[in-house]
Amino acid sequence: MSVSIAAIVDALGGQCLGDSAIEIDAIKSLKDAGERDISFISHERYKAQLETTRAGCLIVGDALADQAKVRGACIVTPDPYLYYAKLSQWWRRQYGSQVQCGVHPSAYVAATAQVANDAWVGPFAVIEEGAVVKRGAQVGAHAHVGIAAQVGANTVLHPRVTIADGCCVGDRCVVHSGAVIGADGFGFAPHEGEWIKIEQLGNVRIGDDCEIGANTCIDRGALGDTVLGQGVKLDNLIQIGHNVKIGDHTAMAGCAGVAGSATIGAHCTVGGGAVVLGHLSLADHVHISASSVVMRSIHKAGHYSGVFPLDDNSQWEKNAATLKHLHQLRERLRALEKQK
Amino acid sequence: MSVSIAAIVDALGGQCLGDSAIEIDAIKSLKDAGERDISFISHERYKAQLETTRAGCLIVGDALADQAKVRGACIVTPDPYLYYAKLSQWWRRQYGSQVQCGVHPSAYVAATAQVANDAWVGPFAVIEEGAVVKRGAQVGAHAHVGIAAQVGANTVLHPRVTIADGCCVGDRCVVHSGAVIGADGFGFAPHEGEWIKIEQLGNVRIGDDCEIGANTCIDRGALGDTVLGQGVKLDNLIQIGHNVKIGDHTAMAGCAGVAGSATIGAHCTVGGGAVVLGHLSLADHVHISASSVVMRSIHKAGHYSGVFPLDDNSQWEKNAATLKHLHQLRERLRALEKQK
Amino acid sequence: MSVSIAAIVDALGGQCLGDSAIEIDAIKSLKDAGERDISFISHERYKAQLETTRAGCLIVGDALADQAKVRGACIVTPDPYLYYAKLSQWWRRQYGSQVQCGVHPSAYVAATAQVANDAWVGPFAVIEEGAVVKRGAQVGAHAHVGIAAQVGANTVLHPRVTIADGCCVGDRCVVHSGAVIGADGFGFAPHEGEWIKIEQLGNVRIGDDCEIGANTCIDRGALGDTVLGQGVKLDNLIQIGHNVKIGDHTAMAGCAGVAGSATIGAHCTVGGGAVVLGHLSLADHVHISASSVVMRSIHKAGHYSGVFPLDDNSQWEKNAATLKHLHQLRERLRALEKQK
Repeated sequence: MSVSIAAIVDALGGQCLGDSAIEIDAIKSLKDAGERDISFISHERYKAQLETTRAGCLIVGDALADQAKVRGACIVTPDPYLYYAKLSQWWRRQYGSQVQCGVHPSAYVAATAQVANDAWVGPFAVIEEGAVVKRGAQVGAHAHVGIAAQVGANTVLHPRVTIADGCCVGDRCVVHSGAVIGADGFGFAPHEGEWIKIEQLGNVRIGDDCEIGANTCIDRGALGDTVLGQGVKLDNLIQIGHNVKIGDHTAMAGCAGVAGSATIGAHCTVGGGAVVLGHLSLADHVHISASSVVMRSIHKAGHYSGVFPLDDNSQWEKNAATLKHLHQLRERLRALEKQK
Repeated sequence: MSVSIAAIVDALGGQCLGDSAIEIDAIKSLKDAGERDISFISHERYKAQLETTRAGCLIVGDALADQAKVRGACIVTPDPYLYYAKLSQWWRRQYGSQVQCGVHPSAYVAATAQVANDAWVGPFAVIEEGAVVKRGAQVGAHAHVGIAAQVGANTVLHPRVTIADGCCVGDRCVVHSGAVIGADGFGFAPHEGEWIKIEQLGNVRIGDDCEIGANTCIDRGALGDTVLGQGVKLDNLIQIGHNVKIGDHTAMAGCAGVAGSATIGAHCTVGGGAVVLGHLSLADHVHISASSVVMRSIHKAGHYSGVFPLDDNSQWEKNAATLKHLHQLRERLRALEKQK
Repeated sequence: MSVSIAAIVDALGGQCLGDSAIEIDAIKSLKDAGERDISFISHERYKAQLETTRAGCLIVGDALADQAKVRGACIVTPDPYLYYAKLSQWWRRQYGSQVQCGVHPSAYVAATAQVANDAWVGPFAVIEEGAVVKRGAQVGAHAHVGIAAQVGANTVLHPRVTIADGCCVGDRCVVHSGAVIGADGFGFAPHEGEWIKIEQLGNVRIGDDCEIGANTCIDRGALGDTVLGQGVKLDNLIQIGHNVKIGDHTAMAGCAGVAGSATIGAHCTVGGGAVVLGHLSLADHVHISASSVVMRSIHKAGHYSGVFPLDDNSQWEKNAATLKHLHQLRERLRALEKQK
């Protein structure tokens, strides 16, 4: 598990300055890297570490090339962070666990299910009637692909993923352990103080190149489907309600929640723990800060926030108590202003 | 999969105006419905869509009957949303996947477990010693019913549900994939800077007609049980701490959390992401807005909120910074007032 | 399942006042306890219940010994809550379900996996190539121990836990159902409006004596590992991002989230639903209130909060609306002050 800088540049491009014969054992952070490791400087703010890192090779942008080559070998590329991403993928392909194919003898594949020859179905996985697992797909141990559900080509379902009946996942997706795609949406009609269940008759459709985090839930539609576009990235423990639509290349951080029938545009980001209420629309390129709550539709691209600032508990107590009288304070201020 | 309006009215009641022989293929939203679909108008605010929808049949209330019958067939009923709920259930019974019975050959059922003859135990499910699965219950693939646990009659455990040792789920419940009923409550005694585990010796008891969402967790009691009443509806990714009591017909939206020993009344609603702190009591008919935090007991029915309003990030930054001085602002205002 | 007070004191210490021959059936709360139950008074505020409880035996501190012995048998000990914790453990060892050993015939253990002779591997569990399950460890039904992963001695993995490839859990840990240890961290490089995956090449390392709650997720590191120290206690549905470090004996309540590369000190507590943003540092002995959001590093031990106070919805609406103008209000106040 060691590779020369020359071999990396050969595979991924970039210009090598310095000794390209140096052997690299691992990709590491600037702080942890030693002389047989490669690291990267993705931002101005890490520039100072150029002097202190012991990395055997640094990936840098043009602006830092001169400075970097003085200290040792480097790879110069227009976007070092992107280069690091591609290097991580290349590294995984070389050294990661091998892609398997076939059906583990302990798995249960129903008679009418279709599993491509080069797909993999792991131990104790269940593929129900009419389900389709396309070429190159990897279905992990204990995963469950429901009746007539579809798993796209080269998609990876990590162990213990649930794709419920009738739901579809596109090509080249990654779904992490514990994710539940296609549980019932939360729909009930109130009647004489009780809740009458509304059966959720829609499905979930997930586009290509999406990633769904561990224990994230995407509910099936009530009528019509819940839909994720292309390249959508959802972190762990996210809740996506029924009939939500998420535009292409939108990303959401952990513990975010989107209530039923909301429509999120393309190229949006939603911070960790943020909440979007039901039936709202967010335009493309809207960015919501972590833990903020979206209570009205947002029609204009931009960056939106709403979080109570953290403080010493004793300070917070005083300010929070006063906040309950804020409207009155405004009235009192107005009264004073009028007296002028 | 098509049915006449007459057959629907025959099954569910209501008055058909117009051509009751029209064949219906699907239930759809007002926007998506075509001439072989049925839709519904549940609220005044959708009235304008009466003119634009192409639905072959509309479910409407008395007030809209005249207007609706002019455009085509309709079913008139006092509560169109309730009618839709019942129609969705009827539809599911007609066209949904069939209820199964028996024990899948790959499942593991312990010697002293009792499984009713007409119950279903899916692939790789585990029913431990002394557990009881009552008549008509459906235990999905990879589900786990612990030692001496009970699954009520006609209850559905979706694939990969955990009912831990000694916990009971009532009749006609639905538990979605990934839910964990009966993990240990979070209890530790502090001792010389470390945490000493308090074994959680209670169980979870869930009433009849409850629904528990995907990946929701309900912890077992420390001493005594965690208890959900009748008809409680919990959405996905909800955390219910040990010894919580939830009254009949209370509903909570996704990502809500209730800390240990809190008591929630009957007929309450808790919005998505809202938090109820430990040891508090909420009266019946209390409604908590999404993302609000309940820090004191609430003894009076009503609607309660506490969320920082969303704003442009730059505006929010200014207001949040000022909020840290709010108490001082009040003091300054008071000083000015005194000078008058 | 009954034991004399004498036997309890014999096992756990403390001084018995009154009739030590009384037989005890269960540990119960002050309110629920009857004459064959033992209960405890852990705090001044429960003192009033000393008069009303019907418990056959009370665990009390020195200050209440005189009062307690008047009403009946008691055990006097410096820290009644700690005594209760130890009693709960003792009780569980006596009466809980028995520790098993061996490999259930339905489990899948790969050829190169090592499982200690006295460890237990439950039904349908999967132990992958090169994985190690140490002595006395309990691997529950449907659990998955990935390639080269390690489960420490006497550690309990409850049913349906995922320990992904290469991740390690220390000795004497408890991991609850649905927890996912070692899913990919959420890392992508933006490139021409799309997200390029950064393969997550690190692992997760969990120290000894940790407890991980149900459906909690701890992501593997991007480069280097995500690390939990000794005695860390995480409740349910918590999200721990990649490369987070958590110091010894820190505890977090349900639904908390820690974003990538944050460093939490030792002996901290993080309340339910609280969020710590990425790349921040928290000193030792920092306590964050429930639902608060940490947006800057905290270098000083203390108690920090930031939550919008709950109010009647109508009051909240007025105050929230005014809050959007708070900065302006300050300006107006300043103007008035200048006029003086």
